[in-house]
Amino acid sequence: MPTATPPGRGSAGRAPTRGYSATKDQLASRLARIEGQVRGIQRMVDDERYCIDILTQISAIQAALDKVSLGLLDDHAHSCVVGAEDADKADKTEEMMAAVGRLMRRG
Amino acid sequence: MPTATPPGRGSAGRAPTRGYSATKDQLASRLARIEGQVRGIQRMVDDERYCIDILTQISAIQAALDKVSLGLLDDHAHSCVVGAEDADKADKTEEMMAAVGRLMRRG
Amino acid sequence: MPTATPPGRGSAGRAPTRGYSATKDQLASRLARIEGQVRGIQRMVDDERYCIDILTQISAIQAALDKVSLGLLDDHAHSCVVGAEDADKADKTEEMMAAVGRLMRRG
Amino acid sequence: MPTATPPGRGSAGRAPTRGYSATKDQLASRLARIEGQVRGIQRMVDDERYCIDILTQISAIQAALDKVSLGLLDDHAHSCVVGAEDADKADKTEEMMAAVGRLMRRG
Repeated sequence: MPTATPPGRGSAGRAPTRGYSATKDQLASRLARIEGQVRGIQRMVDDERYCIDILTQISAIQAALDKVSLGLLDDHAHSCVVGAEDADKADKTEEMMAAVGRLMRRG
Repeated sequence: MPTATPPGRGSAGRAPTRGYSATKDQLASRLARIEGQVRGIQRMVDDERYCIDILTQISAIQAALDKVSLGLLDDHAHSCVVGAEDADKADKTEEMMAAVGRLMRRG
Repeated sequence: MPTATPPGRGSAGRAPTRGYSATKDQLASRLARIEGQVRGIQRMVDDERYCIDILTQISAIQAALDKVSLGLLDDHAHSCVVGAEDADKADKTEEMMAAVGRLMRRG
Repeated sequence: MPTATPPGRGSAGRAPTRGYSATKDQLASRLARIEGQVRGIQRMVDDERYCIDILTQISAIQAALDKVSLGLLDDHAHSCVVGAEDADKADKTEEMMAAVGRLMRRG
């Protein structure tokens, strides 16, 4: 985290910081784990492992990615949407809802 | 719509109104259509129609319900979350994100 | 259940029956309950109930519809796909997979 | 593809081969691309890129994983379920439907 400024929640008038900054290390470690899971599936395919076992692993990755998405979305809602300048709130909300639609696979 | 007050968007200090009020008729007509689609599936089952055709209809209902959900969520974000008193914003955001998690089937 | 013929599982050479026949009453009662849930949401909208509570109810309907879909798909796989004439199996499998894709919202 | 045996589709009496063998290279290259996408998200987080852009990339990965899942499931249905010994078909079908449930996030 290259900046010492606190997250933007309620700090109107200050420069907005990325909503996920506070948990950036946690996010990085989750993504590293997901990358490892994807590599694990590549090995399963190499080893001609049973399809159903591979599908189970893919479902686990999907769950992990959904968890990352919900975390990012939550931070975004708290800091970037609710903390936005009044003039930007409607646009920020639109943008967030479009992301929700994509995550629900309706985007 | 029993109230003449405008939707809560940006009207800080006024009593909050339900976020979906503005499109209540539209919402009611969408739900009536969905109810009709569910009854249509009941008839298909009575008539022993082909499973795959029934599944296609269920997918259509799911899409319609997701559309209603996204509409409600969008109105909620604009009026109830962004328009909330500062003291309530964090709680409102949590509550909205929990609803998003449930809609993503991760709740 | 208007037919006395047994379900098609393994009964090669006999006329196929709909895969969901065995649990038709159960399916009908689930759909009736879902129809009631949709009407419940219409009342919630009429009464201007809180968005989040309506979204929770919609998530419950989606879960109930997913359960119906999985039940239909399961019966279909057992009776119509596995029990199909050899010449039809590939087509039946394609058709089933297309339905799975739609249920996963990737159709 | 370490084996010279043809895929199991319709080859009753022969030893079943993994359903995804035929497209193993394609599968491997899709998974390599997904791994790259996950690393791309890690870089976006490092660079403090905008949440919404990260969410868009996660949605793209989810879509790619769903495509891999549907491909594996399709091959599995064709070769391992439909091509199973009669005594195993019911079990294989159960197992496949459980995987479908997990992919629909209802497992």
